Amino acid sequence: MYHQEIQRAVEQTKVHRTFVPSITNMVTMHAVANTQIAVGGSPAMFFLADEGISLANKCDAMYINLGTLTPQYKDLVPQTILQLEREGKKWVLDPVGLGKGQLHNALIAFIKEHPPTIIKGNASEIIKLAQIWKLAEESSQLTGVDSLDAVEQALKAATELAIFIQNPVVVSGPTDLITDGKTMVMSYGGSAWMESISGMGCMLGGVMAVYLAHSNPMIAAITAVNAFNVAGQKAEQVAQGPGTFQTHFLDSLYHLTADEIASNPMKEVNDETL
Amino acid sequence: MYHQEIQRAVEQTKVHRTFVPSITNMVTMHAVANTQIAVGGSPAMFFLADEGISLANKCDAMYINLGTLTPQYKDLVPQTILQLEREGKKWVLDPVGLGKGQLHNALIAFIKEHPPTIIKGNASEIIKLAQIWKLAEESSQLTGVDSLDAVEQALKAATELAIFIQNPVVVSGPTDLITDGKTMVMSYGGSAWMESISGMGCMLGGVMAVYLAHSNPMIAAITAVNAFNVAGQKAEQVAQGPGTFQTHFLDSLYHLTADEIASNPMKEVNDETL
Amino acid sequence: MYHQEIQRAVEQTKVHRTFVPSITNMVTMHAVANTQIAVGGSPAMFFLADEGISLANKCDAMYINLGTLTPQYKDLVPQTILQLEREGKKWVLDPVGLGKGQLHNALIAFIKEHPPTIIKGNASEIIKLAQIWKLAEESSQLTGVDSLDAVEQALKAATELAIFIQNPVVVSGPTDLITDGKTMVMSYGGSAWMESISGMGCMLGGVMAVYLAHSNPMIAAITAVNAFNVAGQKAEQVAQGPGTFQTHFLDSLYHLTADEIASNPMKEVNDETL
Repeated sequence: MYHQEIQRAVEQTKVHRTFVPSITNMVTMHAVANTQIAVGGSPAMFFLADEGISLANKCDAMYINLGTLTPQYKDLVPQTILQLEREGKKWVLDPVGLGKGQLHNALIAFIKEHPPTIIKGNASEIIKLAQIWKLAEESSQLTGVDSLDAVEQALKAATELAIFIQNPVVVSGPTDLITDGKTMVMSYGGSAWMESISGMGCMLGGVMAVYLAHSNPMIAAITAVNAFNVAGQKAEQVAQGPGTFQTHFLDSLYHLTADEIASNPMKEVNDETL
Repeated sequence: MYHQEIQRAVEQTKVHRTFVPSITNMVTMHAVANTQIAVGGSPAMFFLADEGISLANKCDAMYINLGTLTPQYKDLVPQTILQLEREGKKWVLDPVGLGKGQLHNALIAFIKEHPPTIIKGNASEIIKLAQIWKLAEESSQLTGVDSLDAVEQALKAATELAIFIQNPVVVSGPTDLITDGKTMVMSYGGSAWMESISGMGCMLGGVMAVYLAHSNPMIAAITAVNAFNVAGQKAEQVAQGPGTFQTHFLDSLYHLTADEIASNPMKEVNDETL
Repeated sequence: MYHQEIQRAVEQTKVHRTFVPSITNMVTMHAVANTQIAVGGSPAMFFLADEGISLANKCDAMYINLGTLTPQYKDLVPQTILQLEREGKKWVLDPVGLGKGQLHNALIAFIKEHPPTIIKGNASEIIKLAQIWKLAEESSQLTGVDSLDAVEQALKAATELAIFIQNPVVVSGPTDLITDGKTMVMSYGGSAWMESISGMGCMLGGVMAVYLAHSNPMIAAITAVNAFNVAGQKAEQVAQGPGTFQTHFLDSLYHLTADEIASNPMKEVNDETL
C-alpha cells in the first residue's frame, strides 16, 4: 500500500537539498532541527515577519507550530502564511496550545481562512480544533499539551477537518491515523517511550514538512508517521529509559531505509466502511 | 525520616496527571520538560501574560525561573504570580540571574511582596537574594549563573529567607540544604558531573514544582533533592562524560522507585543546634 | 606549530573561572552552554540590552550569534557591542542568517563599524559577509543556514575580511581554515557526523569565545577548531548515528588533553604562497 510512493518520498529528500524553515515551539526546536536533518532536510528557525516572507519565497515547504507564542507571532504567523499562500508553498500546521490565550485564538481564526496543507495534532488537539472551527460538536478534555483523548475519539473531528481543508489531517497517538476525508490510513508501531519525551509531536510535524517538499500531502503524512513508528520501535530495543531512547531514536531515524519506512504495518479504511 | 511522606509524594505524581506549566529559562527548557515528564508531570512552557493567568487557573503547581528575561516578562511574571496567589496555587521560584539588570530587579522586588511556596537556588543566589531583600548582610560573589559560594555559607541567608516567606528554601550544591527556618535537612549524594551540565538547577526546580502539586512544601523540596541525588549517583556509574551523564541521568530519574528516593542519606538539624 | 600556545590556551580556561556570556541562537543555546562548560567556561545567555551592558563589563569574553533574531535584538546587539568596545573586551561573531531580513542587515552594517575579535562562519557565510561588506566580489549560494560552498572558495573572502577587521577569520568545514590575512592555518580531522547535528557551528563559536578569554585571537581560533576536530574524530569511533554522536562529542570534548588539542594535524601557508 503506497509502497512506491513512500519510498520515493524518502529518497527525494535525500537527493535534493530540502530547505524547510520553521516557526516553531521554543521548547523543542533543537530536537526538531536534528530530526529534520536526519531525514535529509535543511532546517532554519525564525521569529520575525519579514524573515518569514523571505523564507516563504525560498523554502521547499514549511512547518508552523503555535506552541510557545510571543508578541511578535501576531505579525509573524499571518504574514508568513499569506506569503506561503501567494507562492503556492505547502506547509504543516501543528496547532499545539489551542485555547490557551487570545493570540492563539486569533491565529487559529486566521488559519481557518488560510488553511495549511496538513494539520497534525494529538487526539485532543484535533477534537478541539474541529470544535473551535465549528466543524464538529465533540469537546475535548485538553488543558495542556498532552492528549487526554483516544485517537479513535478524534476520527470524526479529523474527517471533518480534512474535508474542510481538502487535505490530510494526522492524529498522532499509540496508533496514528491519517485521513484526507475519504480514505483513512492507520499506521502501527512506535514505542510507549515516545510519550516520555517532550516534543516528539513537534519532531513529527517538522519531519512531515520535510517529506511534504517533494511529495503529495497524503504520502508525506504517511511517510513521516511510518518513519517515526519504525524508528521508535528500533530505539526501544536498545533504550533503557527516556534519555537513551531520545538519543537512539535520532540514530534510528537517520539510518532508516526507504523500504523499511514503506513496509511499516498499516491498514487502510475507505469512506463506505467508516 | 520523612520516609512515608516522601514515598507518598513520589507516588502521587504518578497516579494523578500532574499539570505543572512553567515560565522558564529558554536555555534549558527542553531538559526541564523532559525531567518533569520523567517524574510524572505534564509540562507546558509559556511567554504571554494572558496565558499565564489561564494556566495559573488550570495548573496543579507552577515553576517560575527568571534566567532569560525578555520584554514580555514585565507583564508575564507579575500577572501570573497574582493569579497563582488569587487561586491559592503553589509555585517554586528559581531566582537565577539576580542583579543582572533592571527588569530582574523589578521582578525580584515584586516577588518580595508576593512570595513563592519554595525558593530554590545555589548558595550564591540564596545569599544574594537575602541581601537584595535586606534580610541578611552577607554579600555573595555572584556574577553569572554559577555558584561561587559554599552551601554552608548560605545557611544564615536561607534561614532568614525561609522565615520571611514562611516556607522552605533550598540551597542546591554538593550537599543540598533544605530549611523551613526551624528544621534544616541536608541531603547527600549526587554527582560532580551535575555541575558539568547546563540547567541541572532548572531541572531540579521544575521537578520540585511537580512534587509540590500533591505534597506539602518541605516534603516536595526534600523529595526532588533526594531524587536528583539518587539519579545523579546512578548515572555517574555508567557515564563517561557530561554527554552520557545527561542521557543516563534522565533514564535513572525515570526509573527511581519511591523507596529509593525516600532512602537517600539525609541528616536533620533542628533550631537549637543551629 | 603553535604547540605551546595552544596547550596554554587550553589550560588557562581550566585554571581560571572563565565567564563567557552569549547573545546566541535560541535553537542551539543549551548545546552551546554545555560545550562551553566542557572546556572550562561559565556560560550565561541573555536577551535584554541593559543586561548586555552589565555582562560586557563583567565578562572575560563574549559570543554573539545572529541566528534567531527577535525585536529586542535591535537594541541588544549594538548596545552590548558598544560596551564591549568601550571595555576593550574580546568577542566572537557568528553571522549566521546573513541576508534573511532587515534587522539582520542593519546589525551586520553596524558590526562593520564595530568589528569583532574573531569572525567564524561556514564558507557560504564568509563569502556572503565579504560581499555585503563590499570587500570581495564572489557571491555565495547561501539561502538557509547550511553552507553550499566549499571552504576553498571562501579563501579570498576570508583573507579580505581578516585584513579588514585586522583579526582572524575562521571558515568551518570538512577542513577548517583560520587566517589573519597573512598566515593561513588549515586544521584537519573532525567527522562527517558534525554536519548531521544542528548547531555544531554555534558550539564551535561559543567554545572559541571561551578560549579567547585568555589567549590571542589566532591561538583561540586554532585551539577551538582543533578541539572540535579531535573530539569529532573520537566521538565518531563510538557513535552509531547523529544522536549518539552528539552525546559522545560532549564527552570527548570534556576529556581532551591540552596535548591532544595541540597535536591535531595542521598545515600553515604563508602570505607569499597564497
